[in-house]
Amino acid sequence: MSTPLWPYVTPGITDDLFERLPGIPMSPREVRILLLSALRLKANSCLWDIGAGTGTITIEAALLCPQGQIVAIERDEDVASLIRRNCVRFGVSNVEVIEGSAPECLTGLTRIPDRVCIGGGRTIKAIVQEVWKHLPTTGRIVATAANLEGLYQISESFAELQIRNIEVVQSAVNRLERRGTNQTFAAVDPVFVLSGEKLD
Amino acid sequence: MSTPLWPYVTPGITDDLFERLPGIPMSPREVRILLLSALRLKANSCLWDIGAGTGTITIEAALLCPQGQIVAIERDEDVASLIRRNCVRFGVSNVEVIEGSAPECLTGLTRIPDRVCIGGGRTIKAIVQEVWKHLPTTGRIVATAANLEGLYQISESFAELQIRNIEVVQSAVNRLERRGTNQTFAAVDPVFVLSGEKLD
Amino acid sequence: MSTPLWPYVTPGITDDLFERLPGIPMSPREVRILLLSALRLKANSCLWDIGAGTGTITIEAALLCPQGQIVAIERDEDVASLIRRNCVRFGVSNVEVIEGSAPECLTGLTRIPDRVCIGGGRTIKAIVQEVWKHLPTTGRIVATAANLEGLYQISESFAELQIRNIEVVQSAVNRLERRGTNQTFAAVDPVFVLSGEKLD
Amino acid sequence: MSTPLWPYVTPGITDDLFERLPGIPMSPREVRILLLSALRLKANSCLWDIGAGTGTITIEAALLCPQGQIVAIERDEDVASLIRRNCVRFGVSNVEVIEGSAPECLTGLTRIPDRVCIGGGRTIKAIVQEVWKHLPTTGRIVATAANLEGLYQISESFAELQIRNIEVVQSAVNRLERRGTNQTFAAVDPVFVLSGEKLD
Repeated sequence: MSTPLWPYVTPGITDDLFERLPGIPMSPREVRILLLSALRLKANSCLWDIGAGTGTITIEAALLCPQGQIVAIERDEDVASLIRRNCVRFGVSNVEVIEGSAPECLTGLTRIPDRVCIGGGRTIKAIVQEVWKHLPTTGRIVATAANLEGLYQISESFAELQIRNIEVVQSAVNRLERRGTNQTFAAVDPVFVLSGEKLD
Repeated sequence: MSTPLWPYVTPGITDDLFERLPGIPMSPREVRILLLSALRLKANSCLWDIGAGTGTITIEAALLCPQGQIVAIERDEDVASLIRRNCVRFGVSNVEVIEGSAPECLTGLTRIPDRVCIGGGRTIKAIVQEVWKHLPTTGRIVATAANLEGLYQISESFAELQIRNIEVVQSAVNRLERRGTNQTFAAVDPVFVLSGEKLD
Repeated sequence: MSTPLWPYVTPGITDDLFERLPGIPMSPREVRILLLSALRLKANSCLWDIGAGTGTITIEAALLCPQGQIVAIERDEDVASLIRRNCVRFGVSNVEVIEGSAPECLTGLTRIPDRVCIGGGRTIKAIVQEVWKHLPTTGRIVATAANLEGLYQISESFAELQIRNIEVVQSAVNRLERRGTNQTFAAVDPVFVLSGEKLD
Repeated sequence: MSTPLWPYVTPGITDDLFERLPGIPMSPREVRILLLSALRLKANSCLWDIGAGTGTITIEAALLCPQGQIVAIERDEDVASLIRRNCVRFGVSNVEVIEGSAPECLTGLTRIPDRVCIGGGRTIKAIVQEVWKHLPTTGRIVATAANLEGLYQISESFAELQIRNIEVVQSAVNRLERRGTNQTFAAVDPVFVLSGEKLD
């Protein structure tokens, strides 16, 4: 049996291990570990990864939750294929890739999630509201925003739905990177990570 | 059987779940997940956590590496007891707490580490050099610095020892915190995390 | 004639040169220079500094605008006195301290501002709206937020008033500070600075 | 008489007002204001701007010090011409552009500086040492580093020369930027600004 591409129990897969497509967003590893930490996954969690993009959260979660199930939702067909190729690449088989647009496609999903990750998008408020209907008690929801508009929408939805134990963190990591013959501190663009849970 | 205090597979234990002692440093969770990510732990890793302090890295690693072994090295007797209490609290049994001063005490350790975490200190250069002798090929070393002096010492040691695949990241996370009746963005003090590995 | 306390043409007065009162907020110098830069003061500007607090922006602006006039608005009597003492301390005479609550007190002001700085507060939306009525064309408005609520309020007001050339920056400076016998990188809490101008 | 391009008394000239050349480094405005603040310029200061690049510090200082003199030192002929064009553009006449390599060219300079700004470079340690010989008592020196190597060199030089009142800050500003049809928070790459002064 071949060695898995990421044989580690800690999240934070090196960015360049993923297959990528030009223009398709990818959470850099420093943002990803913050987001995964906010999800508080269990070994048997069912995660909906809405707007899965390159599939980095999907892959990390699939590795962390061997008895769990990851549902990656992505509306673009080519990007959905990219996620599938990354699943093969990392040897994970507990991922279902759904080609569809949230929030519409969410009603057709059969697996009930206990964790939901929302990667942004214009309809984020509608997505949060729809997700909330499906999330059981003690379920957790995590959403990320890269701008003010997203930040408002998520924050407002969370307040309206009376989501509990809301936490907001903003990542802002600097990496020492090689640029030509020099090294320089490069900033990873900041991302807001909002999380909360459903309680009775 | 009671529910474990941290039943999740993702690192990033909430800070206030740990028992603490006044004046004893603790890596906040946002720094901890960056550090753990740099360690790239395996399920059966043997980690030396040098200058373990409150024991947060020790506990997280013990939970992540159920078939592994964590050696927490701490020179202060009271702090060593604190680590032991946190082990009980989180229900981890794969931790050995060594009361001793690094680098001197390292030579007496019987377990060979494949991962080493160094939390700082005045003798960090000597610690890195001693650790290097014990680390087998493919082993990883991670050290943190909160100031320029530490940053130099670690960086210089890493260069002298020709440590490979060196990565330097600086965490800089902001948290939305409640202060009295207001919420405000509070910055978590930045920490440099330097990591590298031993290759033939 | 005695040397002025701040004989420099560059803003960024050292924090500890100001007289302070416990519990009264003060913009640290790194935040202040960002805020002053966003104001784009002219030598003869009239600045309203609303919610002036310790008066650090007032003092810096008074020094930068020798032919200008600074109106410091502060509702608390003791804090207003603090601002006056800081004016004496820094030898500035082009400051008028108004004891009053914004937005109510703004209608009674006789000096028309070309620059307005708003330091936050619960009624920030009403303040921005009232300020806008007084601000002439080419005037600039700068407001700061330390939390999401403030950020929304300001951002929403700016959009509703169709304020032009809006810029949003978030300061996030780290300082190497002495803590006991050690030095450590300490983060200055982040502040959002929103600015824009009135155009026909 | 035409309106000057930057009619303001506050530093922080908008980046895109400068003429630029591809590949020539430019301090973004948020870094520039931190650096200028650390310089503590006087109206009649003589500033050596070593490794002046695009000339942004030179221009800002020339505007802030109308009775002062700025000596911009730049080894590349084309870049020196760029600085001259930016001087014309901003209407400043108190700038002398020296084509030469520091530290060698510094001995030939006739104007004694009370402020020195060092923009980095491989020979930074030699530059700091040479500068120190020319700097009179109460003079200030400011140097910037974008990586660990530069940070060490400057810090070590400062310690060896027993430079007083050393301050180290690291800028880390986020800007809300338009990218296509979206806005996103973009991080300005962090820069370390080290400053200190000469005292008897």
